[in-house]
Amino acid sequence: MSLVVQKYGGSSVADAESIRRVARRIVETKRTGVDVAVVVSAMGDSTDELLDLATQVSPHPAEREMDMLLTAGERISMALLAMAIHDQGEEARSYTGSQAGMLTTASHGRAQIIGVTPGRLQRAISEGAIPVLAGFQGVSPDTKDVTTLGRGGSDTTAVALAAAMGADVCEIYTDVDGVFTSDPRSVPLARPLKAVTYEEMLELAAAGAKVLHLRCVEYARRTDLPIHVRSSFSDREGTWVLSADAVAALVERGEMEEPIISGVAHDLTEAKLTVVGVPDRPGEAASIFEVISSVGANIDMIVQNVSTAGRTDITLTLGGSDAQAAMAALREAQPSIGFADIVYDPGVAKVTLVGAGMRRHPGVSATFFRALAEAGVNVEMISTSEIRISVVCRADDAPRAVAALHTAFGLDADTEAVVYAGTGR
Amino acid sequence: MSLVVQKYGGSSVADAESIRRVARRIVETKRTGVDVAVVVSAMGDSTDELLDLATQVSPHPAEREMDMLLTAGERISMALLAMAIHDQGEEARSYTGSQAGMLTTASHGRAQIIGVTPGRLQRAISEGAIPVLAGFQGVSPDTKDVTTLGRGGSDTTAVALAAAMGADVCEIYTDVDGVFTSDPRSVPLARPLKAVTYEEMLELAAAGAKVLHLRCVEYARRTDLPIHVRSSFSDREGTWVLSADAVAALVERGEMEEPIISGVAHDLTEAKLTVVGVPDRPGEAASIFEVISSVGANIDMIVQNVSTAGRTDITLTLGGSDAQAAMAALREAQPSIGFADIVYDPGVAKVTLVGAGMRRHPGVSATFFRALAEAGVNVEMISTSEIRISVVCRADDAPRAVAALHTAFGLDADTEAVVYAGTGR
Repeated sequence: MSLVVQKYGGSSVADAESIRRVARRIVETKRTGVDVAVVVSAMGDSTDELLDLATQVSPHPAEREMDMLLTAGERISMALLAMAIHDQGEEARSYTGSQAGMLTTASHGRAQIIGVTPGRLQRAISEGAIPVLAGFQGVSPDTKDVTTLGRGGSDTTAVALAAAMGADVCEIYTDVDGVFTSDPRSVPLARPLKAVTYEEMLELAAAGAKVLHLRCVEYARRTDLPIHVRSSFSDREGTWVLSADAVAALVERGEMEEPIISGVAHDLTEAKLTVVGVPDRPGEAASIFEVISSVGANIDMIVQNVSTAGRTDITLTLGGSDAQAAMAALREAQPSIGFADIVYDPGVAKVTLVGAGMRRHPGVSATFFRALAEAGVNVEMISTSEIRISVVCRADDAPRAVAALHTAFGLDADTEAVVYAGTGR
Repeated sequence: MSLVVQKYGGSSVADAESIRRVARRIVETKRTGVDVAVVVSAMGDSTDELLDLATQVSPHPAEREMDMLLTAGERISMALLAMAIHDQGEEARSYTGSQAGMLTTASHGRAQIIGVTPGRLQRAISEGAIPVLAGFQGVSPDTKDVTTLGRGGSDTTAVALAAAMGADVCEIYTDVDGVFTSDPRSVPLARPLKAVTYEEMLELAAAGAKVLHLRCVEYARRTDLPIHVRSSFSDREGTWVLSADAVAALVERGEMEEPIISGVAHDLTEAKLTVVGVPDRPGEAASIFEVISSVGANIDMIVQNVSTAGRTDITLTLGGSDAQAAMAALREAQPSIGFADIVYDPGVAKVTLVGAGMRRHPGVSATFFRALAEAGVNVEMISTSEIRISVVCRADDAPRAVAALHTAFGLDADTEAVVYAGTGR
């Protein structure tokens, strides 16, 4: 029998009524004759409430205990969802990450899945029950301690479970009708996509699109598992995230047009650092990047200016929350590296165009930069891949830049997109 | 090194400030040079909030899922308490009942502890850390499912843990300064007791005194573990629950007066059922009790009237919440048993006097019934043990009956007792 893994985010189970609605959908799916396993996030804002409690109790909560605390959120939602499924006449059994064999590294708050041993879930399914698994959490086989996967963790849980159980598809339910050409909250004329490749989805996620988390897409690509992103508030078909071959097959069968550009994303969470007056000697740039990565900060873009008088400027972007730690580490290393100054600029945005068709269609970058110029957006940094163009501009210019690109590449829909509620993790 | 197990109820950890206060007390205890293990209940009203959520989702929540849901309450409080202990400079590690090896039967909502394998907690202590264990919960080794112990479960968790780890004492922290001669919420002149025997405490608990749960006292008696009931809101010494020999030793050393009466308790939760016109044949009474116990109802007192014309009336009291099920079962069995009618009376109270000294002091029952008569309280049923006299009266008469007995046996204090907050489970 075929198996569907369904993942419901926090906004889909925000209250008792939503939970009952989701339970009906799960039971309806099972009654079409397939096996169903469910992954669920914490209810609505409950994770934020737990974080708030922790802050009230402790200025710097112990990481192990923070994971213990936060995992209470999914425990509540999964138990309630299992109760609601029972009421619809199907047996359901909830499982913690630990009970479900979701094995992770021991890094609290950002654990990585290293294995899945879903024996109890498989037994539940073979006994006709619907297993309901807590997303976002696991257990370290080394320490036996409870861990959490960090942002977007529940999506990764769902994909890892689907891969481990050999599911046919992993359905990720959210509060929009799939993956859009841009965030429908800021671009009302954004259109839902029929399908995107794993590679495009990875680029979109890295570019700040919040619909699916990077790690979850990487996991699906590695195991070639189809993801179906759709809304729990409607019955509409959503967006399929597939291999490039599978997308090509859809085009060949006439089920979708050949896609050139899949979307425009933006990210306001990065900051720009310029290290001024770096001695232009081999190894100096490397030592700067080493210092920054030593504090766990991820560097995104890098630009190095032309050297003048034996000195050069290195500009980079990194996660805004990492900027202070990176600067402190750089200032400490300043005597040994010998640069002149650091300039910190949090007021930037990254705007990104993604499309697998860029490879075969010349002129994309010309259209891209013409559109930005006509919109009066000044480009401060540029970075590209085979299927992506990213620029850094002023944060204030980002909405105008996104809208201009969305229009210039013919992505605007005729009508505004439907947005149902806030997103869960 | 000596080991103290401290148990904090819901009212002691009701909010962030209370949690920090409790953490300070735990750390202070550890710094006197003893090892400490902690058992904690869910915060304040959080269990009721979870119950409310369950009711919103499902009219009859699945029992397995209810246990999964409710155990989220202690998960939150124990993680927060461990964080707060960390902040005070000591290492703390929280453990679920399952992680702590709290093995129970598989009966959801009313599981019994069948074994404790606290290896992880012992390791934590040997590494200098303070283990913080979730009260009220365990795991069934048969089903691997999470279970809860029912009302008063956290006290039982604490005593079971203390016994398994060979602790010197189990401190039960509550919102009053110990075990009182009567409930200080209804008898303001109630006095705290220096010590009571396990037997007296069992009688008091069975009589409706809410300070310690029956099962927890039974567990302590079986393992001869000293319990120290005290307030988390003051530093005052509370009440010791000890073996009769240990209490006698205290008296001998002049640390307390010889106790005659330890207290007066009352219970408004029982109901009275009268089965009218039962055929006065051997076995008829037995079949009535069998029918009632078949629905899981616990019968407390029983009185059988003198038989008239070959028929007799049997009156019994049982938990008010069981009365409807018991009546339904009796009505179904009516044709086979052949009684005439059932009279249901929920408006009763049980008032109980407990004292190990009753054995040696004649005249206690004379004083008892004279006091009730003078207070105008009509006695409907009587039941006694070696160290207890219980009567059933109108619920409205109970406060007057308790006050009269408290005065008649010289239990009134000179000043009113201090009550700090509401009790947790």
